[in-house]
Amino acid sequence: MKCRACRAGAVIELPRHNSALCRDCFLAYCRNQVSRAIDEHEMLRPADRVLVAVSGGKDSLALWDLLLDLGYHVDGLYIGLGISGYSEPSAGYARAFAQSRQARLVEVDLKGHYGFDVRSGAAADHRVPCSACGLSKRHIFDRAALEGGYDAVATGHNLDDEAAVLLGNVLRWDLEYMARQRPVLPATDGFPKKVKPLVRLAERETAAYCVLRGIDYQVDECPMAAGNRHLGYKEALGLIEERSPGTKAAFYAQFLERAAGPVAAAAGTNASTSLHPCPSCGAPTTSQLCAFCRLVERAGGDPKKRIPVSAG
Amino acid sequence: MKCRACRAGAVIELPRHNSALCRDCFLAYCRNQVSRAIDEHEMLRPADRVLVAVSGGKDSLALWDLLLDLGYHVDGLYIGLGISGYSEPSAGYARAFAQSRQARLVEVDLKGHYGFDVRSGAAADHRVPCSACGLSKRHIFDRAALEGGYDAVATGHNLDDEAAVLLGNVLRWDLEYMARQRPVLPATDGFPKKVKPLVRLAERETAAYCVLRGIDYQVDECPMAAGNRHLGYKEALGLIEERSPGTKAAFYAQFLERAAGPVAAAAGTNASTSLHPCPSCGAPTTSQLCAFCRLVERAGGDPKKRIPVSAG
Repeated sequence: MKCRACRAGAVIELPRHNSALCRDCFLAYCRNQVSRAIDEHEMLRPADRVLVAVSGGKDSLALWDLLLDLGYHVDGLYIGLGISGYSEPSAGYARAFAQSRQARLVEVDLKGHYGFDVRSGAAADHRVPCSACGLSKRHIFDRAALEGGYDAVATGHNLDDEAAVLLGNVLRWDLEYMARQRPVLPATDGFPKKVKPLVRLAERETAAYCVLRGIDYQVDECPMAAGNRHLGYKEALGLIEERSPGTKAAFYAQFLERAAGPVAAAAGTNASTSLHPCPSCGAPTTSQLCAFCRLVERAGGDPKKRIPVSAG
Repeated sequence: MKCRACRAGAVIELPRHNSALCRDCFLAYCRNQVSRAIDEHEMLRPADRVLVAVSGGKDSLALWDLLLDLGYHVDGLYIGLGISGYSEPSAGYARAFAQSRQARLVEVDLKGHYGFDVRSGAAADHRVPCSACGLSKRHIFDRAALEGGYDAVATGHNLDDEAAVLLGNVLRWDLEYMARQRPVLPATDGFPKKVKPLVRLAERETAAYCVLRGIDYQVDECPMAAGNRHLGYKEALGLIEERSPGTKAAFYAQFLERAAGPVAAAAGTNASTSLHPCPSCGAPTTSQLCAFCRLVERAGGDPKKRIPVSAG
């Protein structure tokens, strides 16, 4: 098997591009896909200070590496979720990467900082763990980016993630969720700008990128996510992709091109006028207290703690 | 396992209804679902003369049986497609059912009537077999209904079929196909009214209906359809349904309720004004000769033959 670009020995097949690439051409392809995503959706300007949401998995470490190589000023923020046997090694991968690239990694430990971990917070707030986890991560990344003066939060959502979330939303025809599913969310109403520069790369491509770049990452799925619906949607799309390579990419790209507009129009504009700052933390909310501060209170912690990060 | 309705011994579980039913309550459930679909979508009026598209499979025979039991005047039309080892036994099941119910079955043999079978027609017209088959069946059912004076053509598309077609259209975001995917298509522009009364019944439910009613049917999938995309979409949805019973039904129902309108608006109105009658057969077409007559000509047959059916 020869590299389609340079005829050297190929290390990876890309069925959806009807192609195979050698190590160097594959790494260039990854950088190119990220560059194209950033340009296509006007995600970042060259001088932007970016905060990467780092989990220690393949996607967030590949993203951090790629953004550094593309010349952006990027710090990482790792949130210790207190998931036994999973969070500790994940933090280790994040620290090792930061050290190897001499990049700045800020760590916030949920338990040490707010007094709860994902499991106890979920129980106290009567949520499933994935819901408490997502709420906490969104809140902390958003607040850290705003308080730290960053221009954008970058997350490692890849093509498989976005396609699976879109499929889940489409299966319920949840037009409001569909309308919000874009690769860039502009800074508005007290939220920082959020970007997903990996939307043109598949999951197996970010994994291969890490392997070929010698980046060690947390290979295991989060034990609390096992059997969740999102993984079921990924499996179903994987089955279709195998028969018809390119289906996932077309599903996501054509959604943005053809359907996102009509869907947003049908869903109506968001009632953003009813947002006000949470009296405890300042985050925008429609409730008396924001959902994260309610979670912290119910879990017996202190919601007023500030996150120790600044764009330096 | 007890029947949820009458506490007799249950014969079938219905996970999406969180229910299990005995034979009699299940048959009543099937009739009720068909009745509801017909009412909900204003498919048929009581005195309508209906032509059922009969393949000899579980769906079309269950549909014919259910419509007869609901009191409609229903004849069947079977098209002999000339698929070796498959068409002959299929016809046998259709004939046996018609005889058992003393119902009228009209048969059109593609080879005898038009001079080609699915395989040779597909080859002559440079189509895949499923495309030549679908084109021929749509044409013959439509013409037969119009020429025979029927009020509607009823087809056995079940919930699994409709959900799989919808998924295929959504994966490509083909808004025009999505806009046309409705359980009723009104009679317009030289097309008969078309209805799908089984849209509230899953595939395994129509199969169970036939078994419990003692209706023998063609169990095998068409050998020419093996590995086609539609079956892949069904498999993927089946995987999701297993984890989350009710997903398929919600996907289809919510599409009709929430998304079909905006999608139709975005797709724009059909350019039906450019349709004119095919000079050979009278069917509406946008081309010089309609696609079916072109197929017949290329296959060396006579497109002008009329279909021997009337609503009597």
